[in-house]
Amino acid sequence: MDFKALEQKYKSELFDRVLPFWLDKSQDKEFGGYFTCLDREGNVFDTDKFIWLQAREVWLFSMLYNKVEKNPEWLRCAVQGGEFLKKFGHDGNHNWFFSLTREGNPLVQPYNIFSYTFAAMAFAQLGLATGNSEYRDIARKTFDRIVERQDNPKGKYNKAFPGTRNLKNFALPMIMCNLALEMEHILGEEEVKKTARSVMNEVLNVFYRPELGLVVENVNTDNSFSDTFDGRLLNPGHAIEAMWFIMDLGVRFNNNEVVEKAEKIMHQTLEHGWDKKYGGIFYFMDAGGHPTQQLEWDQKLWWVHIETLISLLKSYHLTGSSKSLEWFEKVHDYTWSHFADEQYPEWFGYLDRQGKVLLNLKGGKWKGCFHVPRGLYQCWQTLGRLAEK
Amino acid sequence: MDFKALEQKYKSELFDRVLPFWLDKSQDKEFGGYFTCLDREGNVFDTDKFIWLQAREVWLFSMLYNKVEKNPEWLRCAVQGGEFLKKFGHDGNHNWFFSLTREGNPLVQPYNIFSYTFAAMAFAQLGLATGNSEYRDIARKTFDRIVERQDNPKGKYNKAFPGTRNLKNFALPMIMCNLALEMEHILGEEEVKKTARSVMNEVLNVFYRPELGLVVENVNTDNSFSDTFDGRLLNPGHAIEAMWFIMDLGVRFNNNEVVEKAEKIMHQTLEHGWDKKYGGIFYFMDAGGHPTQQLEWDQKLWWVHIETLISLLKSYHLTGSSKSLEWFEKVHDYTWSHFADEQYPEWFGYLDRQGKVLLNLKGGKWKGCFHVPRGLYQCWQTLGRLAEK
Repeated sequence: MDFKALEQKYKSELFDRVLPFWLDKSQDKEFGGYFTCLDREGNVFDTDKFIWLQAREVWLFSMLYNKVEKNPEWLRCAVQGGEFLKKFGHDGNHNWFFSLTREGNPLVQPYNIFSYTFAAMAFAQLGLATGNSEYRDIARKTFDRIVERQDNPKGKYNKAFPGTRNLKNFALPMIMCNLALEMEHILGEEEVKKTARSVMNEVLNVFYRPELGLVVENVNTDNSFSDTFDGRLLNPGHAIEAMWFIMDLGVRFNNNEVVEKAEKIMHQTLEHGWDKKYGGIFYFMDAGGHPTQQLEWDQKLWWVHIETLISLLKSYHLTGSSKSLEWFEKVHDYTWSHFADEQYPEWFGYLDRQGKVLLNLKGGKWKGCFHVPRGLYQCWQTLGRLAEK
Repeated sequence: MDFKALEQKYKSELFDRVLPFWLDKSQDKEFGGYFTCLDREGNVFDTDKFIWLQAREVWLFSMLYNKVEKNPEWLRCAVQGGEFLKKFGHDGNHNWFFSLTREGNPLVQPYNIFSYTFAAMAFAQLGLATGNSEYRDIARKTFDRIVERQDNPKGKYNKAFPGTRNLKNFALPMIMCNLALEMEHILGEEEVKKTARSVMNEVLNVFYRPELGLVVENVNTDNSFSDTFDGRLLNPGHAIEAMWFIMDLGVRFNNNEVVEKAEKIMHQTLEHGWDKKYGGIFYFMDAGGHPTQQLEWDQKLWWVHIETLISLLKSYHLTGSSKSLEWFEKVHDYTWSHFADEQYPEWFGYLDRQGKVLLNLKGGKWKGCFHVPRGLYQCWQTLGRLAEK
């Protein structure tokens, strides 16, 4: 495999097509923050501002500024989004709303813990980029809110009747695996170690079910399997994405065992989640092979495939697994031939099972300036290391 | 068109295939109530009990007992479900949970107003079938709860930040159009008239937007159009189903104007919602032609098509519209060739855009013993009247 050529491919897609798209099309010059509902060409079709995506764009441009190049345009873009978020994104006590109007008025209450995690991630990187301790404080305080809420993330909006079926969800420990490392400069090594130990254990020993060889989205709070719709739910993209977070933690703490376990789980998930008929990775599945409640179960989503490419390259780089390399080739081909758009920059997000474009957009309520550029960045970096070998 | 042969087709599908399926496969002989998560052959794949579907099955068998034949098997089936609901379905104060475990323990809190509307409908018919005033009282008290909650149906689970964008939703007035007539023997003529006047006005003059020629799912509380994701959302099946509720109200109150307006809206919705490429009616659309937030937007759902058949036949019967007859032929052909299952009884619920089965089930969280048998009953009845002409 020509790693040099691939490195160049991922790099040029990132810098020549994807970043200019977001810099040019997403910034709201009037009210601050970002538009994310952008059609195929980048025209704004809705102006609501979703905190997940506002925060993720702040993070992305700050991260690139910190890791790639001190580009003032990137910093300006990150800072204006950060200021918008600081002013309008939370209730004054670092409880982050889910969405705002274009002008910054709150639309949806702070019910979603991931608005908090992405805000923490954003302000941690923005603090690093600017040296501004106010941003750093926002990240720290938001992290504290997350820790306070982690046992009942939905708070008063939780509709589960207490006591009947107490489930916990995979997404929070999964995201914490990533957030811990993202915030090490704020949390310090000890707190990161402590957090990482706990969330890695949840991911690898609780949500990963050896009897299935798969990660489930929900388990009982006593860590047992729940043979219910929620308990049987699989989200292969989620599980595979988590595995590169775990690999990063394995590298950080020199833990090869963890890297190898993550690689094994990733391979098993990919084999199970791959659509043998049409290619691509399913969005949702039921561990018992039953119909899912999710009507979108067979769709092919951009982030699932991009996160898989990151995981596969990291795994190949760390262990030399030929299985990872073979899968990378296959997923790379599917991803570039289905999600990339030759005519206009940025990628499509949503395909039907057959691989045809389902929503003619480049951004929306859930797709912003995040998975595509982060994935291109991550793959570019790992391919660069492989090319040097 | 051979209405006599069609009448027989709908009737025999109902009595020879669909009703036996539910009587045989759905009743939980151990704990009472009904299983609704049934695979293609009718095997139970999940045992959770969803109040919408529990109540709708009680309603269906009670209604048939009241309107078709005093069949004791139907009554037994309705009563055992009613008893289960009475005991486990609400919090003691006629606040209806959303779902229960098989044994009847509450799983999801009473956040969903439609658990209430279907419970009211169920106990109203069951009261009529049994003459039991306890059932009648449950229906009446539940109706009062609905009226109390109608301005903020989600109560404390409402995540909208108050004051920023106050929307109201189409579904409740729509369902009230049907519920009012269902409960006339309990509410009395005056209350039904009052309720009907108000909800018909909402449907025909508020949610129907003349500038679009379509019914939207949400409007601002000041009755203006909201140019947002929620405000632009169309659900053609919803709008078309509401039109037969309106036609029934028009007939009940001798109001031809209302019948004609409903017919016009139905035609416009059907023309707009029909998939010109693959046939069938889309699930969701955006009034501005933008991408929807709903990933399942292009899927073809059983209830959408069955409700459309009801509306088309009622309209043809009431006005003789040739457009309705032509559309009936087209939708009838699509429905029977795509949703009906020659091999096993009951119909598929979820198809992809191309019309292929997406979920291999006959019942689930949202599909129970309701739209198929109610639709077959309604079409059979109207076809019978047409055959007599």
